[in-house]
Amino acid sequence: MKEDALKEKILGFFRRNTGSYISGEDISNALGVSRAYVWKYISKLREDGYVIDAVPHLGYNLRSAPDKLFGYELKSGLKTRTMGKMAIFHHESIGSTNDAAYELAEAGEPEGTVVVAEAQSSGKGRIGRKWLSPKGAGIYMSIILRPDVETDEIPTVTLVAAKSIADAINDLNKMDAGIKWPNDILIKGKKVCGILTEVKAQPDRVDFLVLGFGVNVNTPAGKLPEEGTSLKNVSGSSVDRAQLVRDILEKFEVDYLRFKKEGFNALRDECKRLSLVLEKTVRVKEHHRVMKGKAVDIDEKGALMIRDEEGIVRRVFSGDVVMCRR
Amino acid sequence: MKEDALKEKILGFFRRNTGSYISGEDISNALGVSRAYVWKYISKLREDGYVIDAVPHLGYNLRSAPDKLFGYELKSGLKTRTMGKMAIFHHESIGSTNDAAYELAEAGEPEGTVVVAEAQSSGKGRIGRKWLSPKGAGIYMSIILRPDVETDEIPTVTLVAAKSIADAINDLNKMDAGIKWPNDILIKGKKVCGILTEVKAQPDRVDFLVLGFGVNVNTPAGKLPEEGTSLKNVSGSSVDRAQLVRDILEKFEVDYLRFKKEGFNALRDECKRLSLVLEKTVRVKEHHRVMKGKAVDIDEKGALMIRDEEGIVRRVFSGDVVMCRR
Repeated sequence: MKEDALKEKILGFFRRNTGSYISGEDISNALGVSRAYVWKYISKLREDGYVIDAVPHLGYNLRSAPDKLFGYELKSGLKTRTMGKMAIFHHESIGSTNDAAYELAEAGEPEGTVVVAEAQSSGKGRIGRKWLSPKGAGIYMSIILRPDVETDEIPTVTLVAAKSIADAINDLNKMDAGIKWPNDILIKGKKVCGILTEVKAQPDRVDFLVLGFGVNVNTPAGKLPEEGTSLKNVSGSSVDRAQLVRDILEKFEVDYLRFKKEGFNALRDECKRLSLVLEKTVRVKEHHRVMKGKAVDIDEKGALMIRDEEGIVRRVFSGDVVMCRR
Repeated sequence: MKEDALKEKILGFFRRNTGSYISGEDISNALGVSRAYVWKYISKLREDGYVIDAVPHLGYNLRSAPDKLFGYELKSGLKTRTMGKMAIFHHESIGSTNDAAYELAEAGEPEGTVVVAEAQSSGKGRIGRKWLSPKGAGIYMSIILRPDVETDEIPTVTLVAAKSIADAINDLNKMDAGIKWPNDILIKGKKVCGILTEVKAQPDRVDFLVLGFGVNVNTPAGKLPEEGTSLKNVSGSSVDRAQLVRDILEKFEVDYLRFKKEGFNALRDECKRLSLVLEKTVRVKEHHRVMKGKAVDIDEKGALMIRDEEGIVRRVFSGDVVMCRR
């Protein structure tokens, strides 16, 4: 981790001085390490795929970064206090980031700890489904959270995260992402992100919560599921995955702190504004029943309120929503 | 486990023929193993603390069993199909049976798997509390469950287990045990059993549930917490711990199957009849608030319904109940 901290600092220094050459001495002075160390870590960064020019008498210049979600890359320039500021566990490939984060949470890792992978061999969706996770194409990530909430508030955490991620996506060019209750983000009717929250809980207390999400970023059309799309597919241009991760972590931290301080109600209107199902006629397949009606509200526990044909309003806590054509 | 299966069979054979001497040949024929094997396993049982007489020309006689909750001892004569019929992990001492069972559940052990210990060094109660678990004095046990339920049904599983355990205790002499919502069993106002349910869940699905409970069985007064009692303390005589475990497993299996088939409502009236808080004025300390009123019902999700002084009925999902003197 010491090594990562130095890489992060050197990267940060380059980025604060974009465009200009920096001497090894400047870096050495700024970071308080020897010039030999600077040279060693610049070599290491090059091994990781960073292209760094070295011109005699001028110094170093960061020409390009590899398309990788290294922990030190994500931390470099990340403006948060907790999210991503604890350990970031980066994997070239992993079974499921949620499973890894769950184990780390059990072992006591703190809130804000992140597991991120370039690829997942068995990325998880809700109720045992798969999340296709081709290498280097998306963001496959899980965050450990330890909020002081009760079990019936879990769905609200998922909704808050959906809001933060949708906001980060909508800050990109030409994007119009919305939330399909309870845990998907869609653009033009196609899924671009799925969220899977898993918890360890006692009846009245959540021990910890693992917030996992997959975003199809630069996933080519051929590697997308039928109902899915990717940000690149929508906009036509590649998106910087590392920058998007930083944007998501920053937005989520702000929203999550507000959620912890003021409760879900403080974010409820914004979640509702982003919702793609409200005011629509929907069919919801819950665990044991199917319901049809008009989605009229998302309540203070994150439940979807559906008014059926007889005018009776029912609460649905989770399920698969199909939007019906009128 | 093979070894345990043979021990269980030999024990079972002894117990079906209580009082009479049995020849090694009879055992050998009945179990389909050599007489040398029978001899070997009788030696092993003696090492475990079983007193087995051997009289020339007459055969063997089981005189006494040690006061231990060995897996094969619990399985011997156990009339269930699932509960305790999977692996039983017995420990002389363990941190917490719930933690061990949770790990086993994560690793895929099936429903009905049991972890039991003679002592716990950090027995867990609700919301971070301790459960005193002195050696050989109580039952410290956890069962892995994999019911097809949603997260808001978790409290009902705890209540069903409380009913089964209270029933098993009340089948003993001179016992009058009741359920103090949500997770304790009391006799004469003092706690004799606590239940701790822990789950792994997604918002709309329980992956697994660990049902842990501690029963103060023969715990001497000096080793009881202030608010606690033990079965021996109440009745004046020692209780066979292994037999009580079998009774609990058998009753719980019946109740649990009914719960899975018909839902909590099928057992709700019986739970209510055993409840010590209904019709009482109570103060409930929930996670973030305190409520006072009359406990008027336990609803179909296991929530306690409390009517406050203004006549407003509120649902409480979990918390600490104090029964008030009028």
